[in-house]
Amino acid sequence: MSSNFGTNIKISIFGESHGQIIGAVIDGLPPGEEISIPQIQIQLSRRAPGCTPTSTTRKEKDEVEILTGFLNGKTTGAPLMLAIRNQDTRSANYENISVIPRPSHSDYAAYVKYKGNNDIRGGGHFSGRLTAPLVAAGSICRQILKRRGITIGGHVLQILNVKDPPFDPVNVSEDELQYLSEAYFSTRSKQAKEGMIAEILNAKQNLDSVGGVVEVAVTGLPTGVGSPMFGGIENVLSAAIFAVPAVKGVSFGAGFDYAKMYGSNANDEMYYDGDNVMTYTNNCGGITGGITNGMPLIIKAAIKPTPSIYMPQRSINLQTHENTTLKITGRHDPCIVPRALPAIEAAVAIALTDLMAEANML
Amino acid sequence: MSSNFGTNIKISIFGESHGQIIGAVIDGLPPGEEISIPQIQIQLSRRAPGCTPTSTTRKEKDEVEILTGFLNGKTTGAPLMLAIRNQDTRSANYENISVIPRPSHSDYAAYVKYKGNNDIRGGGHFSGRLTAPLVAAGSICRQILKRRGITIGGHVLQILNVKDPPFDPVNVSEDELQYLSEAYFSTRSKQAKEGMIAEILNAKQNLDSVGGVVEVAVTGLPTGVGSPMFGGIENVLSAAIFAVPAVKGVSFGAGFDYAKMYGSNANDEMYYDGDNVMTYTNNCGGITGGITNGMPLIIKAAIKPTPSIYMPQRSINLQTHENTTLKITGRHDPCIVPRALPAIEAAVAIALTDLMAEANML
Amino acid sequence: MSSNFGTNIKISIFGESHGQIIGAVIDGLPPGEEISIPQIQIQLSRRAPGCTPTSTTRKEKDEVEILTGFLNGKTTGAPLMLAIRNQDTRSANYENISVIPRPSHSDYAAYVKYKGNNDIRGGGHFSGRLTAPLVAAGSICRQILKRRGITIGGHVLQILNVKDPPFDPVNVSEDELQYLSEAYFSTRSKQAKEGMIAEILNAKQNLDSVGGVVEVAVTGLPTGVGSPMFGGIENVLSAAIFAVPAVKGVSFGAGFDYAKMYGSNANDEMYYDGDNVMTYTNNCGGITGGITNGMPLIIKAAIKPTPSIYMPQRSINLQTHENTTLKITGRHDPCIVPRALPAIEAAVAIALTDLMAEANML
Amino acid sequence: MSSNFGTNIKISIFGESHGQIIGAVIDGLPPGEEISIPQIQIQLSRRAPGCTPTSTTRKEKDEVEILTGFLNGKTTGAPLMLAIRNQDTRSANYENISVIPRPSHSDYAAYVKYKGNNDIRGGGHFSGRLTAPLVAAGSICRQILKRRGITIGGHVLQILNVKDPPFDPVNVSEDELQYLSEAYFSTRSKQAKEGMIAEILNAKQNLDSVGGVVEVAVTGLPTGVGSPMFGGIENVLSAAIFAVPAVKGVSFGAGFDYAKMYGSNANDEMYYDGDNVMTYTNNCGGITGGITNGMPLIIKAAIKPTPSIYMPQRSINLQTHENTTLKITGRHDPCIVPRALPAIEAAVAIALTDLMAEANML
Repeated sequence: MSSNFGTNIKISIFGESHGQIIGAVIDGLPPGEEISIPQIQIQLSRRAPGCTPTSTTRKEKDEVEILTGFLNGKTTGAPLMLAIRNQDTRSANYENISVIPRPSHSDYAAYVKYKGNNDIRGGGHFSGRLTAPLVAAGSICRQILKRRGITIGGHVLQILNVKDPPFDPVNVSEDELQYLSEAYFSTRSKQAKEGMIAEILNAKQNLDSVGGVVEVAVTGLPTGVGSPMFGGIENVLSAAIFAVPAVKGVSFGAGFDYAKMYGSNANDEMYYDGDNVMTYTNNCGGITGGITNGMPLIIKAAIKPTPSIYMPQRSINLQTHENTTLKITGRHDPCIVPRALPAIEAAVAIALTDLMAEANML
Repeated sequence: MSSNFGTNIKISIFGESHGQIIGAVIDGLPPGEEISIPQIQIQLSRRAPGCTPTSTTRKEKDEVEILTGFLNGKTTGAPLMLAIRNQDTRSANYENISVIPRPSHSDYAAYVKYKGNNDIRGGGHFSGRLTAPLVAAGSICRQILKRRGITIGGHVLQILNVKDPPFDPVNVSEDELQYLSEAYFSTRSKQAKEGMIAEILNAKQNLDSVGGVVEVAVTGLPTGVGSPMFGGIENVLSAAIFAVPAVKGVSFGAGFDYAKMYGSNANDEMYYDGDNVMTYTNNCGGITGGITNGMPLIIKAAIKPTPSIYMPQRSINLQTHENTTLKITGRHDPCIVPRALPAIEAAVAIALTDLMAEANML
Repeated sequence: MSSNFGTNIKISIFGESHGQIIGAVIDGLPPGEEISIPQIQIQLSRRAPGCTPTSTTRKEKDEVEILTGFLNGKTTGAPLMLAIRNQDTRSANYENISVIPRPSHSDYAAYVKYKGNNDIRGGGHFSGRLTAPLVAAGSICRQILKRRGITIGGHVLQILNVKDPPFDPVNVSEDELQYLSEAYFSTRSKQAKEGMIAEILNAKQNLDSVGGVVEVAVTGLPTGVGSPMFGGIENVLSAAIFAVPAVKGVSFGAGFDYAKMYGSNANDEMYYDGDNVMTYTNNCGGITGGITNGMPLIIKAAIKPTPSIYMPQRSINLQTHENTTLKITGRHDPCIVPRALPAIEAAVAIALTDLMAEANML
Repeated sequence: MSSNFGTNIKISIFGESHGQIIGAVIDGLPPGEEISIPQIQIQLSRRAPGCTPTSTTRKEKDEVEILTGFLNGKTTGAPLMLAIRNQDTRSANYENISVIPRPSHSDYAAYVKYKGNNDIRGGGHFSGRLTAPLVAAGSICRQILKRRGITIGGHVLQILNVKDPPFDPVNVSEDELQYLSEAYFSTRSKQAKEGMIAEILNAKQNLDSVGGVVEVAVTGLPTGVGSPMFGGIENVLSAAIFAVPAVKGVSFGAGFDYAKMYGSNANDEMYYDGDNVMTYTNNCGGITGGITNGMPLIIKAAIKPTPSIYMPQRSINLQTHENTTLKITGRHDPCIVPRALPAIEAAVAIALTDLMAEANML
């Protein structure tokens, strides 16, 4: 494993931040599925750099092409190859990184792993830029899932101390998810978003960066998807979500809040609503025993502050083996959270498509 | 996937709570590795039921046998089959569960998935009892990793509002890890443990249960293990850890605390300590870009309260399609956290062994 | 990979010739499938040693138990663990093998691979005895496939110059397959079988052994199973069939006879028989582009002579590093072909079950 | 699985005969490996169409580009993406195929599997054209293997009754392999090649086609590569080789000739040649117990006659559900065997690279 994911639906992601091309191959999708390129572009624009003062000034059109497996607007059943050409690359900015690794970035670990052969320009294959093909692949999966009644959407839940109101886990609105899933820097509250932007711009002014938490929900999943032990929804989704750079925590339902709960208030009691089995609460986030129970999925992911900050930082020189100070140039986001959100939603979409295929429900 | 894990080292777990036998097959371990059965038993006794007032009264000796792939105390290179015989099963207790699913348990989701064919007795294949072969397999992996200088240990970090002091992430003591890794209900502070036990017994008296958080650390991992994107340490470890029933969140390093941090205090600045590359802080938990950076791994896992509580709960009758009340009998833990800890450590050990093999470092 | 097979249905085989137990874990089978143990025993008896003068005198009852994933005669959806206990082991016979490898056996290659740690007794994990759990697992798959109208059967096609009449590939009788699939030393012609037995007994008398070819057919497969490139019927079936020790060639349809054919007589011209699409010939063995076309599958496998012969052979002493002569004792088949047949059928059954699951047709 | 192969080295192939692009993603190759593009072009030219009277007149330059994972002539450790642009496509020729499937081609089976959505032009993803990225990927693997002393080469062994002399399996010349591995329509005997060409041209004149057999050898493999049961050299190589369209049989060493052999002449007796372990014969083709034994690998593959012949053939009309006659136009090879040879060598190279990686020997 590495840049490959999936058992029934297989995704292979390729490319580097400053190479010619980034993209993905997706194998195993059902034939005859209509795919809308404009819808992929909407998702790509949600993660695209250069749109707002809170993000990097690097500008990329991120125009996706589906070069194979796609005929007359439909999947053929053969592997899809998605390509996005890189355009605005300024590799000179990265020259000193090749010997002075950026703290909390992959530079040093990758240098050791690849014995100095990895493409260091813009972070190479480790760059957040590689989330573009992930988002494109995820958009294709979302379109297929949507046709089966499944909607995925999320919002920025927290930046520093500014919090957006969380989803009501027993009552997630498909319409709201749909709306959130097409917005940039999605939040449920306009005010929370303004507060978050103020914090990000403040950090930017201080040559600093901030992290945050996103919350993603999924409605419409049938009961019975996922498996016990290693094949559970939690296992497969977290294995996909952690592919988004800077994600350092993943939780489902009440997640880490379970630590302070008693079983009597944590348990999701059940009832029949007509023929539908429902629960009064949804602390388990729609998953019991690794398997969907028909309630909405509730997922949270913690994202660390962008490690590339403009303040001088203590680092090392891999050539001279001396301690030194690093002053990062280049173009970097003061906060990656709003742009990571569509990537995390995409990872969820890809993982769920794989699990739906496994359950013969695709 | 389902009850299988691993790419280079493959583990397949089998069995049910009230069947004759539970166990695991492990394929791909190096030949010639000495395996100590008593050390496996130490790990099994850490998760065994019936030892203390805070756990279920079901008594199982949990004697493990390695029936294949093992000759003269060493691995042969052929698959190891581990078997543990079930002894103290009282299936009658579970009769009403077969039509009235327990809230927040796998019962209902499994009923739908398996169309009513799954073994409901004691939770069947979904039972926490299946962590016994996981722990046994993990102990074998731990012994192999230990021989390469890698130590895994953890403690109960939190039960309700009682907190054990967390590890100092830049300065994890291998000796302390070793000590913790052999104790039952491991905590770093004796006082914290007493407070936790008091809370658990209090919940038990109230026919209730509690959840918590565990923290696991790993020392001695070489730099350069793990891969970008889907093959990262976080991806693979979380995919393994979520196999432990009741785990609902996994984080690395500062995890969800990153949300409140600025890059300037979140970043782990670097320095040479002689020839060793070190970081002043370790918020990233020893992992950057999905790859180990030579600092200790720091992992947290959130565990929900045992869903089987003795208070009456609202549920449904799958036969009559009516709402009803469930009164659970059987024997259940008021808190699964101390017993889940060795299982989570085992999942970490198995995942790291697989990743070490992938990196040709085993 | 190694002793694991399958993507949707996963099989993990364990055990050694002279250990306590051999068996398999099968994960991913549909729930609610009735499994007949007597039918498994019929298959096991077809490969069991000790039944006839043409096979080894080692006697094994080969009683299979399904210890997990199985309740009230049906699969539960959890992994099945099958166990067969070894009984008649005489390990002393193998002592000199540990330093003097048997020509054309795995001894030397395994010694190098496992650095001398592998269990050499009876060939250990390399023994033909490991086909017993393969046959048992295959029988379970056959029963499931049979319920979907799919029948697998085969016969010994050739021993030295004695040939059994091959199947008519456009007109394979399901009844004949069923009959063959339950017989020992299955042939289509009684006379051919007698000739083969004569050859085998002759070789036995000369302290020698013989090889052969088996032919297996499958009827009732739906059109559209299998995938292009690496996921084709040929790829997956051959990957399974070569797991049977001593198989050195696998072909489909006309196989190696295609070398002498023109396209004009090789091509299988098509016609409608009512609504069914049929072909006038079936040289492609029911597979085009890696995908089933609705005609019977036709598979051949070449099996080498048992390498364990009683004549003295030139070999080497791994301890003294000298050339030497090996005189094999122990109990060995003069011809493994009739006993390999049910194992090859089982491998076909397992691979087809996996492919049917992938095609959402299970 | 489908267009994906490999456990340690992962290859994903994409594209269609008449689409814009064909290519492959290769993940898991070691970093720092020099890759020569001219050497890839040599391999591509061996399978390129349009070079000789014995092949199709379609002309493709087949210029490969490595667009990712490749910097300063070396692998970086990130996934390689190889792309070849299609140029000479004449899709009009394929219009009638969309309703009248070609006998012994994938058309009908693919139509059923993909419910009519597959790209039928030129065979789409099923086309022999997809062997171009396979050959390119294989060439990269060959270059890496060559640096470890491993050489792969082959020749056309048989066309109708014309036979090229087979390799001497105990004495394969690395120099000859190297020579054969760079030639077009490789044979060991010039005379055999002339005879084969005469047969092919004769078939072509008769609007017919012919099949054949190729033989591939590998020298320099270390002892101990491969695993028992499903992970054997035979399993993994055959799973790769059958990805080459038209291959219908694969054998190792004496293969189907074993049927006529006694153990006493089939067994490969052993001796020390200095410190090297050698065998007097090499009927097992360098593999015992699924594991390399240090002798050359000997592999044969049977290839069916090109199914696209110009003679009228009986087929069906999928639209009208009537029997009909098909007259194929388009450009087709009268014999695919010489062009399939480098693809089969490439499949061998890819599979061996994966197995070497598994054995920690890459």
